[in-house]
Amino acid sequence: MSSTRTNRQIVLRRRPTGMLQPADTELITTPAPEPADGEALLRVTYIGIDAAVRTWLDDKPGYLPPVGVGEVIRAAGIGEVVESRCDAYAVGDVVTTLSGFAEYVLIRDDLFSTPMPGETDQLAIMSVYGPTGATAYFGMTDIGRPQPGETVVVSAAAGATGSIAGQIAKIAGARVVGIAGGPHKCRAVVEDFGFDACIDYKAGDLPAELRQHCPNGVDVYFDNVGGPILDAVLGRLAPRARVVLCGVISGYLTGKQPGPANYVNLLAKTALMQGFNALDQWGRFDEAFAALRQWAAEGRITHRETVFDGIESCVDALNGLFTGANIGKMLVKVSEPTTM
Amino acid sequence: MSSTRTNRQIVLRRRPTGMLQPADTELITTPAPEPADGEALLRVTYIGIDAAVRTWLDDKPGYLPPVGVGEVIRAAGIGEVVESRCDAYAVGDVVTTLSGFAEYVLIRDDLFSTPMPGETDQLAIMSVYGPTGATAYFGMTDIGRPQPGETVVVSAAAGATGSIAGQIAKIAGARVVGIAGGPHKCRAVVEDFGFDACIDYKAGDLPAELRQHCPNGVDVYFDNVGGPILDAVLGRLAPRARVVLCGVISGYLTGKQPGPANYVNLLAKTALMQGFNALDQWGRFDEAFAALRQWAAEGRITHRETVFDGIESCVDALNGLFTGANIGKMLVKVSEPTTM
Repeated sequence: MSSTRTNRQIVLRRRPTGMLQPADTELITTPAPEPADGEALLRVTYIGIDAAVRTWLDDKPGYLPPVGVGEVIRAAGIGEVVESRCDAYAVGDVVTTLSGFAEYVLIRDDLFSTPMPGETDQLAIMSVYGPTGATAYFGMTDIGRPQPGETVVVSAAAGATGSIAGQIAKIAGARVVGIAGGPHKCRAVVEDFGFDACIDYKAGDLPAELRQHCPNGVDVYFDNVGGPILDAVLGRLAPRARVVLCGVISGYLTGKQPGPANYVNLLAKTALMQGFNALDQWGRFDEAFAALRQWAAEGRITHRETVFDGIESCVDALNGLFTGANIGKMLVKVSEPTTM
Repeated sequence: MSSTRTNRQIVLRRRPTGMLQPADTELITTPAPEPADGEALLRVTYIGIDAAVRTWLDDKPGYLPPVGVGEVIRAAGIGEVVESRCDAYAVGDVVTTLSGFAEYVLIRDDLFSTPMPGETDQLAIMSVYGPTGATAYFGMTDIGRPQPGETVVVSAAAGATGSIAGQIAKIAGARVVGIAGGPHKCRAVVEDFGFDACIDYKAGDLPAELRQHCPNGVDVYFDNVGGPILDAVLGRLAPRARVVLCGVISGYLTGKQPGPANYVNLLAKTALMQGFNALDQWGRFDEAFAALRQWAAEGRITHRETVFDGIESCVDALNGLFTGANIGKMLVKVSEPTTM
């Protein structure tokens, strides 16, 4: 029966330079695979388009190996089990996994595949109760540690991680200032995600805006972008500030760029800058999701998604991350979810 | 009687650019001041020549205000009380204070002036049982936290702070690699201070040397220099590395320089970079000195000094810090100590 299912997947054909070009990838169509013993077949509903996907296409060591030329492009996704020869999953289960850019994928009972029995809202899972929410939670609560009355700045504030991270800082009692590109996003950051203010970095003088919006300096900076924006915020740190390094989206396409000269402020302000990876906290994901569920139930966490349609739009969605096409989580919908 | 004492002091005449020029300072001779009620007069024996002294000559905010034009140049020193109208100090007491570039200075019972009743070795006080030793101790134990078997790298390893910091890491059971300029210093780092190895950054390819000497990466980096050396070590971090920002001597003369592009490794390696100032830990100095005394008594802490002679050599000594003229603590001896 499963042999009648066709599976469209996007494979890497050559390593991209900068944005993905048409010849870098190929959409291929094959029969969906048959699950062997210990496997289940997942019909993918949504694919998460994260900046990390782009980093996996470069031939560089990272926390996961590079995607090989000829392989399906790796990405986190969610779907529903349509066949199972595995005790861990029953048909109909909603499971998050490293689906890749694919309509169907085989899953096993492993670290990367997590059934989500208590949650039917698949968009909420992708935005909040998955690695994105966990990243915002651990970065902000473990490293940022915002205190009531402190000033917290979040870059890519309209994005998937930044929007959640800022809301967590608000819940902690901080004053939260976002940085985003363009008035449309800045409005969403304030009106939808409840930040106290949002600076449009495309509008002009970021250092001056930071002085105005952070008169007592920046106690916590949650950095998703690196580059000149990181440098500007480092120039405005308050004593004993904490800088959370979550991403370097400004550098993913261009490769190496100048470092932040204002890092010397870490010394002058006896401040801390720390990188992290939520996957290191795998054993504490339940803690993060419990907190996030509680806050969501109280109406204190809002999530939004930008959804592209169809597996064939994955590459456009990925490129769109770097042109700022998304508010909230960037997703590609590849099949209709039956739970919502 | 004190009116017969002449007091030579060096005052700032104009703000320097880069190294100090003759017209930037003036050696003036005045009668030594008379202590008022609550004051004592200290005959300065040694003046500590620290990189921080140079930073105080720029018109920039810092943890202490800039030295004003016309004021005596600020520096930490040690001396012996020769007159006292203050309950805190008796004639003959050895006291560390912010003496400035001066042969005599008035002291009060304040935070900056500390009697050293248990210690007669004034060189040891300047090198180990004062802010230099405390800086090495708190930076290494609070932030670096070296574990047995880890690899620790220390820059300016032949210098006052670096030489002590590296020895503390050795005591903690780490493998310690120094970075210093020239074969003479590198030999001192290994033979006198007991580091496992020392890289001569002037000899050639620092990244290649780091790969050779730190095959498993750098777990702790104690940075006294900033600039390209910091960038090279950031390029070699081990997972969960700790980078202790103690100084930026490469930038004190030149002002702003490019930031470390390899800061992105803090993210890739989930590592931490933290600035600190030992003065923030004032209340814990006794803890630091107790540990350092114990280790010194066990023969596990060695200190060395480079001593210039006479108040008139202070400016040469300060410039010498930036040309690498010192092994161990840079001092100017301005009068003969009676305790040794």
